[in-house]
Amino acid sequence: MRIDLNTDLGESFGAWTMGDDDAMLDLVTSANVACGFHAGDPIVMHRTIAAARDRGVSVGAHPGFLDLWGFGRRPILGDSPADIEKMLVYQIGAAQAVAASVGVRLAHVKIHGSLGNMAMVDPDLAAAVARAVRTIDRDLILVVMPGLALERAGLGEGLVLAREVYADRTYNDDGNLTSRKVAGAVTHDAEAAAARVRRMVEDGAVTTVTGRRLPVQIDTICVHGDNPQAVAMARTVRTMLEAGGAELRPFADILRA
Amino acid sequence: MRIDLNTDLGESFGAWTMGDDDAMLDLVTSANVACGFHAGDPIVMHRTIAAARDRGVSVGAHPGFLDLWGFGRRPILGDSPADIEKMLVYQIGAAQAVAASVGVRLAHVKIHGSLGNMAMVDPDLAAAVARAVRTIDRDLILVVMPGLALERAGLGEGLVLAREVYADRTYNDDGNLTSRKVAGAVTHDAEAAAARVRRMVEDGAVTTVTGRRLPVQIDTICVHGDNPQAVAMARTVRTMLEAGGAELRPFADILRA
Amino acid sequence: MRIDLNTDLGESFGAWTMGDDDAMLDLVTSANVACGFHAGDPIVMHRTIAAARDRGVSVGAHPGFLDLWGFGRRPILGDSPADIEKMLVYQIGAAQAVAASVGVRLAHVKIHGSLGNMAMVDPDLAAAVARAVRTIDRDLILVVMPGLALERAGLGEGLVLAREVYADRTYNDDGNLTSRKVAGAVTHDAEAAAARVRRMVEDGAVTTVTGRRLPVQIDTICVHGDNPQAVAMARTVRTMLEAGGAELRPFADILRA
Amino acid sequence: MRIDLNTDLGESFGAWTMGDDDAMLDLVTSANVACGFHAGDPIVMHRTIAAARDRGVSVGAHPGFLDLWGFGRRPILGDSPADIEKMLVYQIGAAQAVAASVGVRLAHVKIHGSLGNMAMVDPDLAAAVARAVRTIDRDLILVVMPGLALERAGLGEGLVLAREVYADRTYNDDGNLTSRKVAGAVTHDAEAAAARVRRMVEDGAVTTVTGRRLPVQIDTICVHGDNPQAVAMARTVRTMLEAGGAELRPFADILRA
Repeated sequence: MRIDLNTDLGESFGAWTMGDDDAMLDLVTSANVACGFHAGDPIVMHRTIAAARDRGVSVGAHPGFLDLWGFGRRPILGDSPADIEKMLVYQIGAAQAVAASVGVRLAHVKIHGSLGNMAMVDPDLAAAVARAVRTIDRDLILVVMPGLALERAGLGEGLVLAREVYADRTYNDDGNLTSRKVAGAVTHDAEAAAARVRRMVEDGAVTTVTGRRLPVQIDTICVHGDNPQAVAMARTVRTMLEAGGAELRPFADILRA
Repeated sequence: MRIDLNTDLGESFGAWTMGDDDAMLDLVTSANVACGFHAGDPIVMHRTIAAARDRGVSVGAHPGFLDLWGFGRRPILGDSPADIEKMLVYQIGAAQAVAASVGVRLAHVKIHGSLGNMAMVDPDLAAAVARAVRTIDRDLILVVMPGLALERAGLGEGLVLAREVYADRTYNDDGNLTSRKVAGAVTHDAEAAAARVRRMVEDGAVTTVTGRRLPVQIDTICVHGDNPQAVAMARTVRTMLEAGGAELRPFADILRA
Repeated sequence: MRIDLNTDLGESFGAWTMGDDDAMLDLVTSANVACGFHAGDPIVMHRTIAAARDRGVSVGAHPGFLDLWGFGRRPILGDSPADIEKMLVYQIGAAQAVAASVGVRLAHVKIHGSLGNMAMVDPDLAAAVARAVRTIDRDLILVVMPGLALERAGLGEGLVLAREVYADRTYNDDGNLTSRKVAGAVTHDAEAAAARVRRMVEDGAVTTVTGRRLPVQIDTICVHGDNPQAVAMARTVRTMLEAGGAELRPFADILRA
Repeated sequence: MRIDLNTDLGESFGAWTMGDDDAMLDLVTSANVACGFHAGDPIVMHRTIAAARDRGVSVGAHPGFLDLWGFGRRPILGDSPADIEKMLVYQIGAAQAVAASVGVRLAHVKIHGSLGNMAMVDPDLAAAVARAVRTIDRDLILVVMPGLALERAGLGEGLVLAREVYADRTYNDDGNLTSRKVAGAVTHDAEAAAARVRRMVEDGAVTTVTGRRLPVQIDTICVHGDNPQAVAMARTVRTMLEAGGAELRPFADILRA
C-alpha cells in the first residue's frame, strides 16, 4: 500500500518565520507552497521549493485569499467566482514560474484556508477553482476532500484528483470536517491521530462523529507543521503508517503510475 | 519603416483607476502590463490583457518593486540582485499565466519605475533581470535603453532586445535620461515631443542635451498614458510618425520577422 | 431648520485618486476621512483634513476593514469584536493625530463600508464600535442609522449620536437599507433623490419600500462623492434643502449647540 | 547610578511571531513598540503595551517605513521629509491611542530601522522627525544617538532627549555605528558586550574603533530581542550593570525626575 503525506509549507513572509519547514520536509512526500497572497513571498517560495526538490518532495501551489494579516483564514465574502478564478490563476502561475526557476514542475494545487473551505462546498466557487487549475495546466492534480463539491467540479473539468483526509480532525456525516468550535473536533494527541489515520487508510473509509462509515479513496493524509507538536504528530503518523507496511510516496507519483 | 509605440497599462488597483487604458490601447502597439507589485491586480491584469488582445496590441509584463503605496517609483535599496531576480520571476510568471488564461502569449518584459532605472545602469541588477527573463522563457523580448548596462546584460543572456527611446524626455551624453529634476528634462508639448520622436526615428540617433548625436537602434517609442495630456501626446506622436510614412507595428512582430 | 450633509472623503491612496474631494468639500458640511486601512494614507489624510478645515467642513474619522484591495466593501468574517475594537482604536487615534497636526479636532466617527453595515445590526460588533469611540474621546460623535443596533450601543456608552439617512437609497421596514441587489434600491436620479431627502427632513420620517412611515431624528444626510454624477447629486440635494429653507451646518455644531 | 535598558518589541504581525517579548519585558525598562508600518498590528500593539504596563516597563512608539515585507530595514528613497513627518504623526498617533486604551501614556519615540538610520544623520529628515514628535505631544521623549543630526534637531524643537548607546555594536569616530558590513561591527559575545556597556556607562564615554574616546551622556542601552541569543545578551548586560551598582529604571522616570 502506497500513501502520501502532505503539508502546508513556505508560509514565512519577509522577516517572519512560520513553522519548521526543514523538519517537515523530512517527513512529508508532498508540499503545498504558499503563493504570496496569504503567506509566502518569492524568496520564501524559491527557498522552499528548492529544499523540497533536494529531498524528493513533490511540490504544489497553495493559493489563498489576498489577506496577509488574516493568513487567509478569514472568510472574505463578496468576490465573484470569476474574480477568484483570476486570483488563483495569478498565484498558481507565479508558483509555477518560481518552481521552474529551480528545475521543478508543479505537481498539484491545494487551496488554502477559508477559501479552500468555501470552495470545498460551494459549487460555483468549486467550478472556478477547477477552471483555474485546468487553465494553467491540465496535468496539475487538484487536492480535494472526497464527496464534496470541489471533487465534483474537478471531475467535471477532467482533472486528476488527490483525495485527502486530515490526521487531526473529526468528520461529519456529510464528509466535511467538524467545525473547530465543536469540542474534540481537533485532536492534539499524536498517537490517537496516527491510529485514526492508519485505520482510515487500512479501512478505505472515514468514520464520522456519529459512527457512520464513509467509504472513500484516500490518496494523501494532511498533517500540519506550524508548531513543534505538529512536527511530532507528523512523525508519529508517518512512523505508524510505515509500521503498518505503507510505503510513503508523493501522490503525484502514485496517481500517475 | 516600421516602428512600435509602447506604454504602461493595467496600473489600476482594486477600486482605484489609473489612466485611460482604453484610449491608449487604440494608439499603441505594445502594452506593458503591471504585475501586482507596484500596481495592477489579477482582475485588472486579466481585463487589460484581454482588451489588448482584442485590439491586436502586443502584451508584455511590467514588473516592479513590491511597493503599492509608492507605485514602484521610489528607489528601494538593500535587496540582493538574487532576491530581485526571484521577485521578477514571480511577477512575470503570474503575468504569463493570466495572459495564457485569455489566450495571449507574453511577448516581452519591461521593468517598471525605479527598479527599471536602477537595472538600466547597475550591472549586477541588470544581470539579475536578464536571468529572470531567460529563466521564464528565452523567447521573451527584453525592453532596454540602448547603450546601458541592461542592454549588455540582455545580450549576455542571448535575449532578443527591443531598444526604446522616450517621447517626452531629454538625454544625457551617456545615453541615460536627464534627471526629472533638471529644468526642461520632461516635455509637455505634444508637438515638440512628436517632432523629436520623428527626428530620432528618421535619424536613427538620439541627440543629447549637449547636442551630441548618439546613433542607436530604435525599436519602440515609449509614451505615457496616465493623464489626459499624455493620451493627446501619444496621439500626436502616432499621427506624426504615420505622416512621415512609418508603419506602426508591435516590436515583437518586427523583431521576429 | 438646520441640517448637515456628510460624505466620505480622503479615499485616494498613494498614486491613485478617488473622487473629486475638492468639489465635495464645497458642498458638504461634514467629511468622513478614510484612515488608511481601506483607503487613504497619512499624506492623503493630512491634505484632506487641511482642505476641510479651510472650508469650515467638520471632520470625522472613517475607519474600516484592513482591506485596501477590497476598499473595505467586502464582509470579512472571523475577527472577534475585541480585535475589531483595537483596529478601530488604532485608526481613530491615527486620524486624531493627523487632524491635530493641522489644527483640527476630530468631531465624529463613522464606520466605513461592510464593517459599518455589520456593526449597524450586530449588537456585539456595535458595542465594540461604541467602546472604541468612547475610549478614544467621549466627546466624539458617533454616526448611526436610526433604530438599529449601533444606535443602541452608542446610547449605552453615553455617546452623542448623529442619526443619518441616505439620499440615494431605499429603506426596509426594519429601518435598514434595502439591499443593493434589489432593483430600485439605489437612485441615480438626482432630482428624485433630492426630493426624497427634502421630504424625509421636513417630515422627520423615513418612508419604507412598503410605504410604512418610520419617524426618525435626522441630523445628517449622507451623499456620495466618488463619481461625477454623485457630485451633481450632492449639489442638487443641497440646493433643494436650501430652497426649502434649511440651513446647512455641521452636525457637530448643531448637536453641541 | 541609574540607567535604562530599551528594546524593540511588538514586532509580530497577524499570524507571525517575532522574538520573545515576554522574556524581554522581564529584562528591559523601556519598550519601543512597532506601529504597524514595518511590523506590529493593532492587536499586537494592544497586547504588547498591556504586557509592558503589567511589568512597569515604560512604553514608546517605534515608527518606521511602510514596508512590511522589508521589516523597515531597507532604505527607501524619494519621500520628502514633509511626507515622512505625516507618516510618523499617523503611526505615533495610532500608538498613543492604543496605549491610552490600556491606560498607558506613551513616554517616548524611537525611529525604527533604516528610517532611524537615515534620520540620525540627515538634518532635513531629523527636523521632520523632531517636528512630528513635538506636534503629537511635546512631552514625548525622543531617543537619539549622541552627537548626530537627530540630537540637534530634537534640541531645536525643545524636546527632552534620551541618548542611547548600543550593546552589541562598535562606533566610528563620528559617533555613528560602524557599518554591519565591517568585520567585527556586531558583537555576538554577551560577556564582551556587557563588559563594554559597563565601561561606557561608568566612563560616560564611547570608545571608537580607532580608540578615540567620545564623552557622551548615556541615558539608555539598546539591546535586541529578536532571537534567543539576544535574550541571553540582554540578561547578561542587565546582570553586569546591576553587579556594578547600577539601578535599572525607565529613562522616562530618570529624565523627568
